Amino acid sequence: MTTQDARTPVSVQSASTEKREPGWHKGYLTGTRPDIQVPVRQVHLTTGRDVTLYDTSGPYTDPNVTTDVRRGLSPLRENWIIGRGDTEEYSGRPVRPEDDGIKHTSPRGGLRNLDAVFPGRPRVPRRGRDGQAVTQLAYARRGDLTPEMEYVAIRENVSPEVVREEIAAGRAVMPVNVNHPEIEPMIIGKRFLVKVNANIGNSAVTSSIEEEVDKMTWATKWGADTVMDLSTGRNIHTTREWVLRNSPVPIGTVPLYQALEKVDGKAEELTWEVYKDTVIEQAEQGVDYMTVHAGVLLRYVPLTARRKTGIVSRGGSIMAAWCLAHHKESFLYENFEELCSILASYDVTYSLGDGLRPGSIADANDEAQFAELRTLGELNTIAKRHNVQTMIEGPGHVPMHKIKENIDLQQEICEEAPFYTLGPLTTDVAPAYDHITSGIGAAMIAWWGTAMLCYVTPKEHLGLPNRDDVKTGVITYKIAAHAADLAKGHPGAQDWDDALSDARFEFRWEDQFNLAMDPDTARDFHDETLPADGAKTAHFCSMCGPKFCSMKISQDIRKEHGGDMALDPEAGMRQKSAEFAASGNRVYLPLAD
Amino acid sequence: MTTQDARTPVSVQSASTEKREPGWHKGYLTGTRPDIQVPVRQVHLTTGRDVTLYDTSGPYTDPNVTTDVRRGLSPLRENWIIGRGDTEEYSGRPVRPEDDGIKHTSPRGGLRNLDAVFPGRPRVPRRGRDGQAVTQLAYARRGDLTPEMEYVAIRENVSPEVVREEIAAGRAVMPVNVNHPEIEPMIIGKRFLVKVNANIGNSAVTSSIEEEVDKMTWATKWGADTVMDLSTGRNIHTTREWVLRNSPVPIGTVPLYQALEKVDGKAEELTWEVYKDTVIEQAEQGVDYMTVHAGVLLRYVPLTARRKTGIVSRGGSIMAAWCLAHHKESFLYENFEELCSILASYDVTYSLGDGLRPGSIADANDEAQFAELRTLGELNTIAKRHNVQTMIEGPGHVPMHKIKENIDLQQEICEEAPFYTLGPLTTDVAPAYDHITSGIGAAMIAWWGTAMLCYVTPKEHLGLPNRDDVKTGVITYKIAAHAADLAKGHPGAQDWDDALSDARFEFRWEDQFNLAMDPDTARDFHDETLPADGAKTAHFCSMCGPKFCSMKISQDIRKEHGGDMALDPEAGMRQKSAEFAASGNRVYLPLAD
Repeated sequence: MTTQDARTPVSVQSASTEKREPGWHKGYLTGTRPDIQVPVRQVHLTTGRDVTLYDTSGPYTDPNVTTDVRRGLSPLRENWIIGRGDTEEYSGRPVRPEDDGIKHTSPRGGLRNLDAVFPGRPRVPRRGRDGQAVTQLAYARRGDLTPEMEYVAIRENVSPEVVREEIAAGRAVMPVNVNHPEIEPMIIGKRFLVKVNANIGNSAVTSSIEEEVDKMTWATKWGADTVMDLSTGRNIHTTREWVLRNSPVPIGTVPLYQALEKVDGKAEELTWEVYKDTVIEQAEQGVDYMTVHAGVLLRYVPLTARRKTGIVSRGGSIMAAWCLAHHKESFLYENFEELCSILASYDVTYSLGDGLRPGSIADANDEAQFAELRTLGELNTIAKRHNVQTMIEGPGHVPMHKIKENIDLQQEICEEAPFYTLGPLTTDVAPAYDHITSGIGAAMIAWWGTAMLCYVTPKEHLGLPNRDDVKTGVITYKIAAHAADLAKGHPGAQDWDDALSDARFEFRWEDQFNLAMDPDTARDFHDETLPADGAKTAHFCSMCGPKFCSMKISQDIRKEHGGDMALDPEAGMRQKSAEFAASGNRVYLPLAD
Repeated sequence: MTTQDARTPVSVQSASTEKREPGWHKGYLTGTRPDIQVPVRQVHLTTGRDVTLYDTSGPYTDPNVTTDVRRGLSPLRENWIIGRGDTEEYSGRPVRPEDDGIKHTSPRGGLRNLDAVFPGRPRVPRRGRDGQAVTQLAYARRGDLTPEMEYVAIRENVSPEVVREEIAAGRAVMPVNVNHPEIEPMIIGKRFLVKVNANIGNSAVTSSIEEEVDKMTWATKWGADTVMDLSTGRNIHTTREWVLRNSPVPIGTVPLYQALEKVDGKAEELTWEVYKDTVIEQAEQGVDYMTVHAGVLLRYVPLTARRKTGIVSRGGSIMAAWCLAHHKESFLYENFEELCSILASYDVTYSLGDGLRPGSIADANDEAQFAELRTLGELNTIAKRHNVQTMIEGPGHVPMHKIKENIDLQQEICEEAPFYTLGPLTTDVAPAYDHITSGIGAAMIAWWGTAMLCYVTPKEHLGLPNRDDVKTGVITYKIAAHAADLAKGHPGAQDWDDALSDARFEFRWEDQFNLAMDPDTARDFHDETLPADGAKTAHFCSMCGPKFCSMKISQDIRKEHGGDMALDPEAGMRQKSAEFAASGNRVYLPLAD
């Protein structure tokens, strides 16, 4: 991890000097052009020092920006996209009632007012001129440094050239569909900060459009770097449109889910035409990355027959059913090259799906899983030939001693393409705590090289996550990601820990709260037993009380015995120690003879 | 992990056939003598099969036993202890008001009715005759197989000889004070199931005796294998007595805390006499293991001067203050051999404290920490010479890449004595989530050989844990421990995962709940969106809904395409696959050229 050879010069400026929230405010780092404004969370310590943290929360936390969920965010990348001159607007595919799961024949359906999909600014889709690849991979390979690359370089505190090199080599991706100009660019690759994805999405059983948009902004508030919209019920097109227009982070989907809705949930009726239509529909909306389960081959399905939990990926099981019903190779695999050229013309990033990931400890690292991984390696090579940015999905349920084999094999087979893993869950026995069973595996696999972690919420295996579950899942995974950043020695990662630990040792409680990953809960927990304002400066908390606070005693030691510790903290103690050593008769002889 | 060469023959019997709770009941495995009754949790599956799980909850979960917190548990080990004939009853040290932090001169104090300490059966303390070591280590070394050893062998599903060998070699300890006959023996060592300790204890700021007893039974209900009573406020003696008399698990303490109370919290006024008096007081009550910070040497204190967070162990900071105030080596280190002979005569196990453990990522694996570890290695050798069972305390805050060095060094320096670690926390930045930051490190260090994990609750660094925090801490750590058991390949560990995953794949929701580490929360989470009884047999949950349930599709695949899968699950699919291979023109040529 020594690529951070040059740091991007940045100027720190305040988003607002008047309306600051106490303790922290939204700031921006400006790039070489004034429209490169990289958001950061500036924490103001009581010592007067500022600590700058990575920020995923979008304009929602900037008091100077008025956001309106019905209008969407402003298209900050629009000029960069247009400025490259390699894309064109076109009329696009008409939006049909079926896109929202509404049949013409349905009594509740009928013809819809299509303008009602999203009430914000009118939008015309854009794509690469003459079918050319308008991807960051193509630009990076020919040596172009895009504004997006500079943006993420500032965000990651590395040089833009490192960003370009990593993308060009296929070791990193930047999911930035030309039809999603609202996002704040971010990068996924093992040389960068470990990222976290949060899944949202209504199911046929519960939840609404408004809830999903709210879950997206809520997830990014707590640190989600990307969001996957896995909606499967009605209003799937409209939900996605609202999420995209309001999302400051890349949005991923699994187009197969919507395609299946279009054929009334009958897997065997899926066709390449329906699927392709859905991919174009979603690419025109601005989906930044798509999970494609093209690695589920007919001959791999029997490998799952003796498994404890069969196929546990939704997409995987759908494709397996299709392959068996038609008794032939999947339309995703057979049409993969055409799919590549579609994705390339919008800069949609592949997330090659792990349809055969293990759903139990017993099935981890089995033949089915690794056979599919080898196919994903082949597909990765093809995608790269088409200049499509590509990452590879992995894990599921894997015991600790089998985790490293996964990342090592994936890196070898897929030429270091970014690995994007669900967990892995390190045991099956704790439903309702799978954010924890998987947070353990996630931290480890990220340390060893996984670039993005797909979160797991406490509701995994049990139900659809609510707002609280989303928050718990995101924070658990941000912990795993940051623990991995520390273990990888990511430059600057430890500064955050150091700042918080300094605040802790010096009993600067407010600083400790403001630096915490979740300031609200840290403050609430402290105040539960010591709510008085005075306790915010007290040299103890209710955990040990004043007499037993080790840090207070430790401070007292420094004060009483440390001599002029402010100047040389060890001088006083060294003297004491020297005196001790000199007093020969005081030395206790080694006990072990 | 190949020591499980012989399995103890066990007979499974039901504690009750009438009053079973639905889904599971308390059972007992009988040893070679009828008074060896090892508790288990018998989960009854809807398939008719039973799954037997390790159980720490004590008689409280047995509907045939009436428990009364004012009378205490029945002394199940009493006959074994008396039967050995090597201990004697004696009058014991009188209980004084100061033991509860009450001064004669205090207006609230005065002389107390000492009988009021605990209202249960009268108790006379017991110790080794003529100061002899009545420890399981002494017995194991001379080849005796005690009933306690057989008991834990049944619990761990290994042969009693393995238990004896591991104890004799000092690689495992069984904390069983002769004055705590109420406990159900358990073993701590790397060849056995990873154990979890839960800390309870009032502080000067909050909580009561009743709350602490309740926290103890609550912690063991959820799986705590031992409990440390870290009380520091008033009623410290009485709280401990109530906890001990009602505890089915070993109780650990840090005698230094009480000794400090006896000298009004003035560290420099501590003496060997006050400390020794406190150790005897607690040994007579039945404390099973004691943390002793004898490794904090005067010359190590300056090593902490440049640390980010100084000394964060309460005991460590107290001893450091004492050493500096007196400018000499600590009374714990200087009187260590005498302390050994005291502990040996009650079979109190040493937990050699890590007074200089790191309290921040910045301080991990530093000179202070490892210097103390080397001294603990010396002390371990001395303790063993006195036949005192010994474990070693470790970690604190350690980033993932520095964890393994800790366990490897400890195992080398301390001749494989059991390592007992707090976490470690893998980052400092998430107060309110330190059960998770540390659960990650705990799982890893346990995989690599730590024998017992000291839990961390969400309130760590912020306040005293309440009931919910204790439960969350215990369950998080049981997950870490079980994940490690799986990774170590502990015999039988995966059976639990397999049973749960089978239930999951077959949509046996009730079995899934009953097998879960926390059945209540798993059931609640499921019912939050699908409360109807019918949903308990439905082939989906609200997470994906019926159409997208991968496991349902996977099952359908097996039904429709698997041929006679009940007889040979792969036969049908193999045939399909063969047909596919034969149809040459259908084979898609490898894409990667």
